[in-house]
Amino acid sequence: MLATVTCAAEPAAAKAPIVHPDKRITFSLKAPEARSVAVAGGDGLGSGPFQMTKDANGIWSVTTPPAVPGFHYYWFVVDGLQVNDPTSDTFFGYGKPTGGLEVPEQGADYYAIKDVPHGEVREKTYFSKSTGAWRRALVYTPAEYDKNSKARYPVLYLQHGAGENETGWTRQGRAQFILDNLIAAGKARPMIVVMERGYATPATPDIRQENVQAAFSAFEKIVVDDLIPTIDASYRTLADRDHRAMAGLSMGGMQTFFIASHHLDKFAYLANLSGPIIRNADLSHFSEISMDGPFDTKTAYGGMFSDPAAFNKRVRLLWVGVGTAEPEMFRTSIGGAVKALKSAGVQLVYFESDGTAHEWQTWRRSLNDLAPRLFR
Amino acid sequence: MLATVTCAAEPAAAKAPIVHPDKRITFSLKAPEARSVAVAGGDGLGSGPFQMTKDANGIWSVTTPPAVPGFHYYWFVVDGLQVNDPTSDTFFGYGKPTGGLEVPEQGADYYAIKDVPHGEVREKTYFSKSTGAWRRALVYTPAEYDKNSKARYPVLYLQHGAGENETGWTRQGRAQFILDNLIAAGKARPMIVVMERGYATPATPDIRQENVQAAFSAFEKIVVDDLIPTIDASYRTLADRDHRAMAGLSMGGMQTFFIASHHLDKFAYLANLSGPIIRNADLSHFSEISMDGPFDTKTAYGGMFSDPAAFNKRVRLLWVGVGTAEPEMFRTSIGGAVKALKSAGVQLVYFESDGTAHEWQTWRRSLNDLAPRLFR
Repeated sequence: MLATVTCAAEPAAAKAPIVHPDKRITFSLKAPEARSVAVAGGDGLGSGPFQMTKDANGIWSVTTPPAVPGFHYYWFVVDGLQVNDPTSDTFFGYGKPTGGLEVPEQGADYYAIKDVPHGEVREKTYFSKSTGAWRRALVYTPAEYDKNSKARYPVLYLQHGAGENETGWTRQGRAQFILDNLIAAGKARPMIVVMERGYATPATPDIRQENVQAAFSAFEKIVVDDLIPTIDASYRTLADRDHRAMAGLSMGGMQTFFIASHHLDKFAYLANLSGPIIRNADLSHFSEISMDGPFDTKTAYGGMFSDPAAFNKRVRLLWVGVGTAEPEMFRTSIGGAVKALKSAGVQLVYFESDGTAHEWQTWRRSLNDLAPRLFR
Repeated sequence: MLATVTCAAEPAAAKAPIVHPDKRITFSLKAPEARSVAVAGGDGLGSGPFQMTKDANGIWSVTTPPAVPGFHYYWFVVDGLQVNDPTSDTFFGYGKPTGGLEVPEQGADYYAIKDVPHGEVREKTYFSKSTGAWRRALVYTPAEYDKNSKARYPVLYLQHGAGENETGWTRQGRAQFILDNLIAAGKARPMIVVMERGYATPATPDIRQENVQAAFSAFEKIVVDDLIPTIDASYRTLADRDHRAMAGLSMGGMQTFFIASHHLDKFAYLANLSGPIIRNADLSHFSEISMDGPFDTKTAYGGMFSDPAAFNKRVRLLWVGVGTAEPEMFRTSIGGAVKALKSAGVQLVYFESDGTAHEWQTWRRSLNDLAPRLFR
């Protein structure tokens, strides 16, 4: 369109957030008529909301304390109304499009776009029989995929967290560039990565609002009955369990363990990135899901870990990770389970991301550690 | 993420717009502390902004007069601040993420997802030497592309309008589904469609703010020096002018004629969808660009049309379209030029979209008319 004709409202004059060298961030928003403006956002941004103050031109601003490096969701609260920064792209989080910013991490270039061969991220439209609806998967194919027209590739199914969707891993997580860099350096095997929306229904910003058991079961059907067959029919995959991995972050990590506990015949590689590792199998009532206390390796996840020797033989990699600056709930539930599993003799890789929060920098680092270990 | 831990601000309770059978639309937003709320949006939504009224629960609402069918951008104006509807996905328009809604058109299913073979939309990361920066093209490959691993395909370069970006044609325009349906019905030849961001710099919401000549020239370099060579090197294209088309909507139509006027050696098919057809060649000052008055076929666009017989022989299709409900500026500039070109003997297809505005329904219909005529 020509905005000259169709723009009925003038966009507010706006300036993008300024990230200072010491990682403090200055936010601003022009809203002359507002009476109260604050900025709030993701875990790594600090404790917020941070109240902003208005200058003579009606521009509200605040400089926040140093943030954790990485990607942070953020938004303004204008007289009680949550509003995205008009200068920001939006990223699907909290069940809706949400603003986001990047705080650079010194020396970390593993998720940068580099001068290496680049894979593609493909939108795959497919029909899900289990839900009776068309869906969209995002499929990363490695740079060599179109050149080696006979080669077949292993597949990683990679899930986002609660309130996010299938776009999270590429837009917030930069998974395609992490893979491009690892593959170009010979550190990871060329693989296909499939990212789907982890809901059979519209995204829920807070999984406490759902019957988690029903929601996870409906998504399990999509993965097992619809998605895997579609991917194996559409791409040159190595279509067996030895060449199939599932991983997810937070809710996606919970889903990975939930689905794997019923389908170890489908996956030989499992990874849980900051997903609470729960004790009880019944997920019908979120309030009753136990995330702390002793983890019983005999009964948890339908007994998936009850015979460590058999599990170790069958599952070629169990990977679990968490950020050291994540809220206690995550560190406790994950740390406790990891300790119990190791004591019981379950082989696993445990990864800690130093100083990062329940946010994407933890999961970028996690993928960067995980991907080289897959399909070896 | 688990929103339970990281959500510092509660999202506003919200209800998506209700589109009534008579195409009136009821908008609502919960904003108890606001003093004034209105809704405004794209050309086809009506004359707006429409003031909303507040109920006892702090929910503002209004029902607007019947809208034109198709996709409409929209936003709320809350105490002077432009705010997207939290219930809406965002679509890049007006130089930033903007809400959007769909008003169904009775009987029109050519842009629906149907049970036909579906192509893919691929994100192609590539380095643009002319700007020294990494860029992203979106590339539609037809459903058969991966199955016929020896076949080569013609390419349509398809551009968005001012304030939009490379995502417009698939997200707002549903170009991939229009092509899927046409190709499945045997009405269009299987083709690759390439969509890029029509700026060498960040998107400008209003092209009046730019040196149009410089902006178009920089984009022309990207297309000719960077994009076409990248696409021809990366995909199985038919890499000659007889199998290469360029088309664009509004600003993208202007860019198509601008680039074609210097590079008829590159393109045998040209289409201008609602792009003003201007008289003068110097685009340095937007205010001096003439969009009405007699169109001189001898001098316009560097004399591209000055020898109609030669032009007709060289250009296998010239396609021009406009919606009958578009603002006069578009109808006058396009209609006047079409009349002059026809009188001079330039062969062209002229398409009118009945009753649609300077909006995506016009351009969906345009693509649906155009694509079957390409590469024949």
